[in-house]
Amino acid sequence: MSSRNAFYAQSGGVTAVINASACGVIEAARRHRDRIGTVFAGRNGILGALTEDLIDTSKESDETIRGLRSTPAGAFGSCRYKLGAIETHRREYERLIDVFRAHDIGYFFYNGGGDSADTCHKVSQLSAAMNYPLQAIHVPKTVDNDLPITDCSPGFGSVAKYVAVSALEASFDVRSMAKTSTKVFVLEVMGRHAGWIAAAGGLIETHDVPVVVLFPEIPFDREAFVARVETLVKKRGYCTVVVSEGCRNADGSFLAEQGTRDAFGHAQLGGAAPVVARIVADALGVKVHWAVADYLQRAARHIASRTDVVQAYEVGEKAVALALEGRNAVMPTIERISDEPYAYRIGVADLAEVANVEKAVPRAYIGDDGFGITAACRAYLVPLIQGEDYPAYVDGLPRFVRLNNEVVTKKLEPFATR
Amino acid sequence: MSSRNAFYAQSGGVTAVINASACGVIEAARRHRDRIGTVFAGRNGILGALTEDLIDTSKESDETIRGLRSTPAGAFGSCRYKLGAIETHRREYERLIDVFRAHDIGYFFYNGGGDSADTCHKVSQLSAAMNYPLQAIHVPKTVDNDLPITDCSPGFGSVAKYVAVSALEASFDVRSMAKTSTKVFVLEVMGRHAGWIAAAGGLIETHDVPVVVLFPEIPFDREAFVARVETLVKKRGYCTVVVSEGCRNADGSFLAEQGTRDAFGHAQLGGAAPVVARIVADALGVKVHWAVADYLQRAARHIASRTDVVQAYEVGEKAVALALEGRNAVMPTIERISDEPYAYRIGVADLAEVANVEKAVPRAYIGDDGFGITAACRAYLVPLIQGEDYPAYVDGLPRFVRLNNEVVTKKLEPFATR
Repeated sequence: MSSRNAFYAQSGGVTAVINASACGVIEAARRHRDRIGTVFAGRNGILGALTEDLIDTSKESDETIRGLRSTPAGAFGSCRYKLGAIETHRREYERLIDVFRAHDIGYFFYNGGGDSADTCHKVSQLSAAMNYPLQAIHVPKTVDNDLPITDCSPGFGSVAKYVAVSALEASFDVRSMAKTSTKVFVLEVMGRHAGWIAAAGGLIETHDVPVVVLFPEIPFDREAFVARVETLVKKRGYCTVVVSEGCRNADGSFLAEQGTRDAFGHAQLGGAAPVVARIVADALGVKVHWAVADYLQRAARHIASRTDVVQAYEVGEKAVALALEGRNAVMPTIERISDEPYAYRIGVADLAEVANVEKAVPRAYIGDDGFGITAACRAYLVPLIQGEDYPAYVDGLPRFVRLNNEVVTKKLEPFATR
Repeated sequence: MSSRNAFYAQSGGVTAVINASACGVIEAARRHRDRIGTVFAGRNGILGALTEDLIDTSKESDETIRGLRSTPAGAFGSCRYKLGAIETHRREYERLIDVFRAHDIGYFFYNGGGDSADTCHKVSQLSAAMNYPLQAIHVPKTVDNDLPITDCSPGFGSVAKYVAVSALEASFDVRSMAKTSTKVFVLEVMGRHAGWIAAAGGLIETHDVPVVVLFPEIPFDREAFVARVETLVKKRGYCTVVVSEGCRNADGSFLAEQGTRDAFGHAQLGGAAPVVARIVADALGVKVHWAVADYLQRAARHIASRTDVVQAYEVGEKAVALALEGRNAVMPTIERISDEPYAYRIGVADLAEVANVEKAVPRAYIGDDGFGITAACRAYLVPLIQGEDYPAYVDGLPRFVRLNNEVVTKKLEPFATR
């Protein structure tokens, strides 16, 4: 079999470990130079493919590529740009194939969440329909942990660790202050539709911290919530609240709805914490502090979960292995073998089963009152935040790599994106 | 000289390393059992002394006391309770002396910021006036870094490191997303009157990140700010804004004023980030994300500066040494000898010169345009964030210590606090 080139792109919201997957893909490809020529990366995700804005990763040293393993966010740039249905957006899909053909790209590695799994699947279908030989492999990534089939999604474990560590530390703070000052601390975390990240906040309960978790899966019940916080403050003197940005009122409206939408049509949220803080302050008359972690949580490479870093690398590596096995329209998955001791293997799922399915937190993982996590949820989460994987530091700051990102000479006419 | 007991209390907002100072005090005292009997700690700071709610630290093992070195927040509880002028609050000062007398306390170690330095100074004066032999030593602590005389305040270096690391990581995130999504990221940090913490955000500029810092020392100029952000977004594609909670409009009002005040009479702030985010989004029509770090920053023991942890321990140790030298109404300080290589020694300052003086960021540390830091500021800050000092982890979370906090039997009548 002759050598063909590969295309790799990062899609959607980035994570602390998506570059570890890039590292896994590129390092694995470099180990198979007989089969895989150059790995081209799309600048700003799939946009790079559409506009033929390709980065030649072969210009980066092995050491730099290794450095991706401990560098957060998307080293090649990501994008929020969803390709639509093939019927209505055929021009864009065909352009992708044109670019792939022009650069002899036979492997398409797309690193993203549910939306990009869908895109990857469609690219695979269209390349077959157009009789262009292409193996499309999706590399899973999402802090939201809402991809189906895989036990967890790379990127999630590190956010979960960040949230649990931060909530624990801040709880120690508010406990110190509660006698005369702040009695309730509210932390807003990500998770638009699924409460996996918020659930991680529930892990601190076994560290003797009174905590209330507000999940998007459970309609917000103001009275029950205030009563729960009041009980904890009376009994323990203080309380921490971890609220998902996706928490909704019973009528389906977000606590923090701002009325704006991103390119994928998702509501752009932010500000559930001040809303919840105001509710508590008004109802109980106690001093409340609040924090919104926003990008800090998903970029927090400094406190990444070692389990997550390793798995992110492994799914990248596995994507290349699957490509070399001739697989198409698949995604590496993490298959859990046991909770304790934690054991897993890297499996594989068909994209047809992955695309556009969102995995919410199961009801059995949420306590009866809707404000905390169960032992089953804890058993699920704890392995995912295991281990630390500290980056190197210079002058007090992490030494993250910056790529040269050398562009490949264009061969095609310009293409107008939406 | 016969042995007398000691009293130690934590005051005001806690930090990631105030317990390291407690560790320094208690370990140093245990090395001088011939001179210092029991170290009693005040539960919830000075309130513990007023209400005779004393904790017997001798009941804690050496290992547990050692664990304080890597445990954030106030292990004995802190408080926001400012003793007023001696003339108007003599009853409270006399009560302190009564409690100290009842428990044969000859050493008063008060661990806090400017307000507690003032209290410590007054206690020293009143004990002399009441002819009660007491050595009052203030142990410096404040994330705001606004204590005078000392080169820096323990607690600050760790917040500075947290802010610089977090801003760097989030900047990598927004840089990844900027092509099609978020172009500006706003991070709100603490610092009511002094912009030291915000200045730490400026450290990421030398990491090739376009950053704008909003200091409380510089009146907010909306037009100039928007123009600066616009230029950076045009030139670099994205931009990070680090805004101090204490940032004010030209008329002196806080960007984030909420109209409430704490027990010390300070305005209670929060919410500068959404205000700034809204200004940018409205003016430039770009997508903006914002985060409010709040307690996360000052509790972040997981990313504490090693320099800060060591200095926090050393000022605790030095406080005991000063007491044993017979000093009174003094505070250990950090005296910088050189920037690079960083060298310092632990010095001593008279409390008369410390109390109620706030050290703002000097104008020479802020760039001409008011939106960044100078080389001199950088030379000052970099040593303070040097080194990491990771806590141990169990099951993915830091192993922080919890004290037994055994109470001492009361000998006096109850006392009504305000």
